[in-house]
Amino acid sequence: MTFGAAILDRVARLGRHSDSPGHYTRTYLTPAHRAAAREIAQWMEEAGMRARLDAVGSVIGRYEGAEPGAKTLLVGSHFDSVRNGGKYDGVLGILVPIACVAELSRRGERLAVALEVAAFSDEEGARFHTSFLASRAFIGRFDPAALERRDADGVSLAEAMRAAGLDPAKAAAARVDPATLAAYVEVHIEQGPVLLDSGHALGVVTSIAAGLRHTVRVRGEAGHAGTVPMPRRHDALAAAAEMVLAIEKRCSVPGNALVGTVGILKVKDGSSNVIPGEVEFTVDMRASDGRTHLAAQEDVFAECAAIARRRGVALDHTKTHEVKAVPCAPRLQDAIARAIGRATGGEAPRLPSGAGHDAMVLAEVTDVGMMFVRCGAGGVSHNPAETVSAQDADAAVRALLEFLRNFSTTPA
Amino acid sequence: MTFGAAILDRVARLGRHSDSPGHYTRTYLTPAHRAAAREIAQWMEEAGMRARLDAVGSVIGRYEGAEPGAKTLLVGSHFDSVRNGGKYDGVLGILVPIACVAELSRRGERLAVALEVAAFSDEEGARFHTSFLASRAFIGRFDPAALERRDADGVSLAEAMRAAGLDPAKAAAARVDPATLAAYVEVHIEQGPVLLDSGHALGVVTSIAAGLRHTVRVRGEAGHAGTVPMPRRHDALAAAAEMVLAIEKRCSVPGNALVGTVGILKVKDGSSNVIPGEVEFTVDMRASDGRTHLAAQEDVFAECAAIARRRGVALDHTKTHEVKAVPCAPRLQDAIARAIGRATGGEAPRLPSGAGHDAMVLAEVTDVGMMFVRCGAGGVSHNPAETVSAQDADAAVRALLEFLRNFSTTPA
Repeated sequence: MTFGAAILDRVARLGRHSDSPGHYTRTYLTPAHRAAAREIAQWMEEAGMRARLDAVGSVIGRYEGAEPGAKTLLVGSHFDSVRNGGKYDGVLGILVPIACVAELSRRGERLAVALEVAAFSDEEGARFHTSFLASRAFIGRFDPAALERRDADGVSLAEAMRAAGLDPAKAAAARVDPATLAAYVEVHIEQGPVLLDSGHALGVVTSIAAGLRHTVRVRGEAGHAGTVPMPRRHDALAAAAEMVLAIEKRCSVPGNALVGTVGILKVKDGSSNVIPGEVEFTVDMRASDGRTHLAAQEDVFAECAAIARRRGVALDHTKTHEVKAVPCAPRLQDAIARAIGRATGGEAPRLPSGAGHDAMVLAEVTDVGMMFVRCGAGGVSHNPAETVSAQDADAAVRALLEFLRNFSTTPA
Repeated sequence: MTFGAAILDRVARLGRHSDSPGHYTRTYLTPAHRAAAREIAQWMEEAGMRARLDAVGSVIGRYEGAEPGAKTLLVGSHFDSVRNGGKYDGVLGILVPIACVAELSRRGERLAVALEVAAFSDEEGARFHTSFLASRAFIGRFDPAALERRDADGVSLAEAMRAAGLDPAKAAAARVDPATLAAYVEVHIEQGPVLLDSGHALGVVTSIAAGLRHTVRVRGEAGHAGTVPMPRRHDALAAAAEMVLAIEKRCSVPGNALVGTVGILKVKDGSSNVIPGEVEFTVDMRASDGRTHLAAQEDVFAECAAIARRRGVALDHTKTHEVKAVPCAPRLQDAIARAIGRATGGEAPRLPSGAGHDAMVLAEVTDVGMMFVRCGAGGVSHNPAETVSAQDADAAVRALLEFLRNFSTTPA
């Protein structure tokens, strides 16, 4: 358990760098965020890497390979957090590879490839609503328009960068040449209960889910709660309730890696003695493949339209977000599965990722693979209760070490 | 149509006394409210009544009967409004009897009883959350604790009374001796679509509905919308949606004068990518009799509990409001029905009132009767679209005149 205890100790130490004393919240370029970057850079250097801060504040540590000129295997994740989040989310995928490099370095081992550990500065985008800012910049897709976005205090992203000693005009310089990359591998806490339920410490991610989000508006007829007989009503909330259940039912078809969630539902001008006239809600649907996803979307909105017609309410919906499913490279899936098998002596279950990760962005320029680590506490994440055991963190380090030692740029 | 056009003209004139220029909003003791009181008092005087302002700002006009010492028949309603309300609600039940008195006075007719027209100053209670303040004070149930309540600007009820020239210490003086009352009759816009749908201008109210309100809280398990498989979820919103539909279904049993409404539903910390962990909603149930009401309440919460058990969520509910059904006196129902028949030449449908009215309060000390006037615009009320036709207002004046002329304190 030597690796595991050390990982948990560092998770706790990094967790002290928080924007607010009561919660764990670390958003892009705040003092806590910059202190975390400094500590990560120091751990990289101690592990035998050369650490650099890139143009958008990510920390990149480099461990040279056996031969000069070899391609670079990138392993990493992010060190920003959501508000009042969990301390393992992102951070685990930085600390595990640093521990691996420290072990390789201690033993004087060099890999067939150069290894870079990427600590991405902004993935959640909680401060400026900029999801995947750092990994996008890394692949050369930094969006200069984002520089004008302002945080809740009115500070622009450009101002925040300047205050942190970064030059907003040079953000594009974060780009690395994709031709130098052999692959990207990310270790991440599962953020769900699948490994916990199946009794496995580690799993192989098959794909990152396709996702789409709609905002749905239902308009019925407001009225006095005491005076309009039931058959005469066009209650927007009752209609929306029926739609919520239709979405749940359609996404619960067994054997489908499909989930559907209504996370926000608002009754406009709601009053206990008024029949709801208008309701707005969100639908978030994710599936491991695009076909499942599109079929579910089609069925869900056909069913909502039928409910609206039957109840005499108006329905409209707007797509607010869509991402395609990102498959993990089969060769990396197999290599990760073998490494897990060797490190733990057990099977490595394969599962899709319902959440988005930096690997989705890196997949635009290179092959990606992901290893999930079991999430404790019932699988909760984005929450202070989020946890990983020392034993599981230990297994993650040993499995990633196996993977790294056996990684080859040529197919098996 | 002489009476009707005059009524609509006065509704429009009174509608100009509003707290805000854009909406029709007239709350207790604002400048607009006091101006409306002055105009009503003037119309009472012009109709041949002696008008007085009582200790809580209600305007009471008196038209003496044929014989001194006779009991008093009280006819009235309220002249305050909800925010952005309808101009007929309350006001119609003041203007119709004033028009009747003007006609009696013009013809030199006196009734077997003294007639008082009550323009109650506060029924909706929109400013200080004081429902039925004026009619309660009238029957001697003014609550001195209410004097400490403050409006949205921090002004206390006591301060508002003093600013309006009323002495808060003397509010109890609004009480009249119930022994002097022969009955209370209220004319009111229906606030629903029943008369509109059945094609009748006027109706006889059988009872004012029993009502109860609960706040229901459902606690499930929050989670990441992408990572928790559907069968693993305890979604508080999906559970609440099922409860909303169960309430709707139970209250829709045909032949039951029962209605049920979920008017407020809030997802706590709702976010489009988070499975709802907690939802709170209100239930408002009304029925024309207490037995129907209690049976529905029992069934609804048994069903909600079953849903909660099946879904593994916690449920609790708190009763926030309860009123018993108030029957209208059969002799007054019959007398109103006969008057409507004579005035309109048609039948007078009988219907319960789902909304509360000052008659509920007066019923504590005397017999009450109510006449409903058809609500246009699909039956909407508490809304700027609320409307009554001149023809229907005319019928209301003629029917009330019939009723007054035939009213006797001795049973038929």
